[in-house]
Amino acid sequence: MYIKDAMEAAAKQAKQTMNENKGGPFGAAVVKDGKIIAVASNSVLCDKDPTAHAEVNAIRLACKKLDTYDLKGCEIYATGYPCPMCLSAIIWANIKKAYVSGNIEDAESIGFRDDFIYKYIESGKKDKNILSIDFQDEYIAKALYSEYAEKNKTIY
Amino acid sequence: MYIKDAMEAAAKQAKQTMNENKGGPFGAAVVKDGKIIAVASNSVLCDKDPTAHAEVNAIRLACKKLDTYDLKGCEIYATGYPCPMCLSAIIWANIKKAYVSGNIEDAESIGFRDDFIYKYIESGKKDKNILSIDFQDEYIAKALYSEYAEKNKTIY
Repeated sequence: MYIKDAMEAAAKQAKQTMNENKGGPFGAAVVKDGKIIAVASNSVLCDKDPTAHAEVNAIRLACKKLDTYDLKGCEIYATGYPCPMCLSAIIWANIKKAYVSGNIEDAESIGFRDDFIYKYIESGKKDKNILSIDFQDEYIAKALYSEYAEKNKTIY
Repeated sequence: MYIKDAMEAAAKQAKQTMNENKGGPFGAAVVKDGKIIAVASNSVLCDKDPTAHAEVNAIRLACKKLDTYDLKGCEIYATGYPCPMCLSAIIWANIKKAYVSGNIEDAESIGFRDDFIYKYIESGKKDKNILSIDFQDEYIAKALYSEYAEKNKTIY
């Protein structure tokens, strides 16, 4: 069930931090059982952290409040369409339901560049002008993975 | 230029934190001008933070050390192939070069599920068993974006 209060709380926080020059105009809220657990907004500029997008911040805050890395059963409300980083963070957090207000085109129209990362991924991650990825010393990862498997470590 | 010391430092830290049950067997290092700026590993379990992957942690640490959200001119070394969250974080940080030891199939073979997020994105983000995304109240985002554009806020 869509909780309008959650989207509005996310927008209110985004509006405030945008006007304080803390980050972009994006907010997010995590809801569980109809109750708002965490509200956050983009804080890339003030935290000097390129990963401090609204959804990532809301997930981190919700995890802190619920004392878990697993937000199963939670929903996320985002004022903007999640970029691939945030989308993946939502999935890693085991959130299965996202409500979104804005779309990618709207964010692009004010200069944000979420879409080119989706396009880079969708086209096979080959555009070296965006990011070149080279494989080196594969035995290093293989040794780590073998040790992990042998010791039956917790897979989250 | 590939700096073997950086990959080995990332692997050493991953091995240590894996054995302390702090997180998965993944490490990363950020390098600038041939010098290692930050080394980090996956700390999802100990930090109870689903976003605390090695690359994200290394980027956050490098940004803190360099006092910036912009890692232009840096390279990243990752023992595992970056998941879409980490890949996007690397791109948002303006890092253009990644060196990777392990591939996705290797990580899948020990139970990590990075590939299904790439597949979800590549197939149009439609699989509701992974994440359903619904649009609601689009005027909320439009109002935020208009205000942002009118005030000529910093776009990072």
